[in-house]
Amino acid sequence: MPITILELQAALESGSTTAVELTQRALERIQNEQGEGPACFIEVFAEQALEAARASDILRAAGLSRSLLEGLPMSVKNLFDVAGYPTLGGSIVLEDADPAMYHSVVVDRLLKAGAILLGSTNMTEFAFSGLGINPHYGTPSSVWQRDQARIPGGSSSGAGVAVADDMSVFSIGTDTGGSIRIPAAFNGVVGFKPTAERIPSDGTMPLSRSLDSSGPLAASVECCAIVDAVLSDQAYIPLLPSPLETLRFALPDAYVLEQMDDTVKEAFERSLALLLEHGAQIDTIAIPEFAQLPYINRQGGLVCAEAWALHRELIGSNESDYDPRVASRILRGKEMDCADYIDLLDTREAWIAAVEARLNGYDALLLPTVPIIAPRIADLQASDAAYFEANALILRNPSIINFLNGCALSIPCHADGQAPVGLMVAAPAYHDQHLLAIGAAIEQALYA
Amino acid sequence: MPITILELQAALESGSTTAVELTQRALERIQNEQGEGPACFIEVFAEQALEAARASDILRAAGLSRSLLEGLPMSVKNLFDVAGYPTLGGSIVLEDADPAMYHSVVVDRLLKAGAILLGSTNMTEFAFSGLGINPHYGTPSSVWQRDQARIPGGSSSGAGVAVADDMSVFSIGTDTGGSIRIPAAFNGVVGFKPTAERIPSDGTMPLSRSLDSSGPLAASVECCAIVDAVLSDQAYIPLLPSPLETLRFALPDAYVLEQMDDTVKEAFERSLALLLEHGAQIDTIAIPEFAQLPYINRQGGLVCAEAWALHRELIGSNESDYDPRVASRILRGKEMDCADYIDLLDTREAWIAAVEARLNGYDALLLPTVPIIAPRIADLQASDAAYFEANALILRNPSIINFLNGCALSIPCHADGQAPVGLMVAAPAYHDQHLLAIGAAIEQALYA
Repeated sequence: MPITILELQAALESGSTTAVELTQRALERIQNEQGEGPACFIEVFAEQALEAARASDILRAAGLSRSLLEGLPMSVKNLFDVAGYPTLGGSIVLEDADPAMYHSVVVDRLLKAGAILLGSTNMTEFAFSGLGINPHYGTPSSVWQRDQARIPGGSSSGAGVAVADDMSVFSIGTDTGGSIRIPAAFNGVVGFKPTAERIPSDGTMPLSRSLDSSGPLAASVECCAIVDAVLSDQAYIPLLPSPLETLRFALPDAYVLEQMDDTVKEAFERSLALLLEHGAQIDTIAIPEFAQLPYINRQGGLVCAEAWALHRELIGSNESDYDPRVASRILRGKEMDCADYIDLLDTREAWIAAVEARLNGYDALLLPTVPIIAPRIADLQASDAAYFEANALILRNPSIINFLNGCALSIPCHADGQAPVGLMVAAPAYHDQHLLAIGAAIEQALYA
Repeated sequence: MPITILELQAALESGSTTAVELTQRALERIQNEQGEGPACFIEVFAEQALEAARASDILRAAGLSRSLLEGLPMSVKNLFDVAGYPTLGGSIVLEDADPAMYHSVVVDRLLKAGAILLGSTNMTEFAFSGLGINPHYGTPSSVWQRDQARIPGGSSSGAGVAVADDMSVFSIGTDTGGSIRIPAAFNGVVGFKPTAERIPSDGTMPLSRSLDSSGPLAASVECCAIVDAVLSDQAYIPLLPSPLETLRFALPDAYVLEQMDDTVKEAFERSLALLLEHGAQIDTIAIPEFAQLPYINRQGGLVCAEAWALHRELIGSNESDYDPRVASRILRGKEMDCADYIDLLDTREAWIAAVEARLNGYDALLLPTVPIIAPRIADLQASDAAYFEANALILRNPSIINFLNGCALSIPCHADGQAPVGLMVAAPAYHDQHLLAIGAAIEQALYA
């Protein structure tokens, strides 16, 4: 498990390291051609990062630290505007686009909090798949069994690997159907998808106006809470784990548990057993609305319609430069008329109300982030059928929470030496603070 | 001008009248075949109203009045669910629909506040036009020059005439593009379109999920404020007119002032002069975004897309029973694909932000509710071209405020003996309380 933000702050405060040293070390890892760095990063801002680290060390020495992120090397997904650079979204279509004039709000808040921006991380083109395969900029392998070259998870592929491989203390991703939580699960780090409206989207390249959210991947739930406070411009209140014996969890009785492989099943059941041992209550309940989603989204769902609205001009003139597997998904939106889309908005409102009613009285929902461990990149690259089948299965559970407009954590829950598996802890919109406190407690129980 | 809610409450408290007497008198007017009553009402609940009035008189005598609406006869547009009756929306297509099982929230709140429901009022079919012509249930004439049979304004056509002709102390309409304010303007009463989200829409037949709002038509701004407090389930705080000499109004320099007829021009200019005399500041400002609306809505706008989504099944099997002028507008939505609609949602957000920025620092916007006096029914019935031309012109100004997601009053501003003209006072979303206080001050200045 990578080192945490509070541990690093203690080291920086004690003088046992400096922002410059942390930045240099991270840059060396990023630039190491033997590692995953080159496939994890699309842009690296080495000089600016080192200058910012120098300034940070001066501020700290003067007692002027700006936040708990002071001097910490971080990275952001290649879809957040960074002033002076074109925002590519992991595509080659926008290589000639104008550079961004301003930082996105996300980047701006992090820089003002004193974090050091190392670069922008690789991603599925335009954030439109959960696998993390990118034919233009390469595909980093996830952290487990590197010789097998397993997918990093997407769409925030570089973000997950960058945190797991100590190339960033934390990394900012976006999550439209699981794009923070899937790479977190496959790389054994924590991913937090906040309630979408809590984090401003100005200067962030959109995929789906209804479903997009921005949040951190980091070493622990507490690290995510610290970053989230900066992203949402709220004061950070030290995270107190909720006592597990006071918590009541809902475990869906079907759908989200289907097609689990043995590794995930074992890790998930082991995690539930540990939570029960620590006094948590876990009720298995029916949430039949979950299984309605494939039918509700039979035309591709909100994301296809909204991605089509965003891309219809660009794809009209540049389709051959798109990843064909991304393009084919965007083009599904073309088949939806306005009434299909409006029905979907109405259906979603009623669906959210129905699911929230079932979750009333529960502190959070428990489910596997992804029901399988990371498949091998080559297997999915080789076949459209394998690609789309894996993509649907991998997005299945996390995308439920986007449709709910909820918030969710993916917390590593596998035993040492096993393939990384994520435990998803989720709740309806605006339960973020309580969810983080619950997540901190679960983390303690799992690693005790 | 009809009698106000506070005057009626004083009369009821003093015993000089009773709820039963008010109800009987209103029912007589409604049922008078020589008057506009039969064309104003689609359903009349005479017996229930009289029983409710008897109960109200008993409660009042016992000191148990429920609100300032206790014992006051009212009516609601024929699209609010009333338990036990099918909700027709001014159409014949739904005559065989199941009766509503519950009252709409609007009806429920009014009944619990002690108001007496006389019946449901006529409307443009499915609320989709600003003229108020209904080929199925007849078209009431507006209050001025009855022998000329001028349009009542729509879509809440019966509501405006019912208040003007003392068939209801107040009446509840809906407003998607002006459907409360236009009948208010043409009938010389006050109409209030609140910020949409303030009034729950449960049990209200929708036309446009983005633009619909519900609100009152009544004798005065204060009457509207009293009813609005019940509709929004807020405590009624006695309305204090804002001192005019402290207020700063924005007068758009173009677009909304185009095509004014002489009567409207004279009344509008006279009103501005009176406000200036009372010390108000009125700045003429450019709001070029207003003139962009015809282009933004060139495919029919949000309302066509959203009405199409609601009606596509029903109109598919019953088109011949629709008012052909309503059907043709609904069918425009069919031509919009999901991206056209999503672009419109995005455009609207940016447009609202731009207009709100221009209105920063102003207490309210002033404009004529409608630039012309009510045309004659026969002239518009005779020709599709005349119908659609008048409809576009009459909706032009009020619909700006729906697109803004704002709130607006239409206040009678004509001189005695002239055709009714409405002065629209409008503000961005959630400025409702301040707007009502401003409206009360304007009313005093105009009638002083």
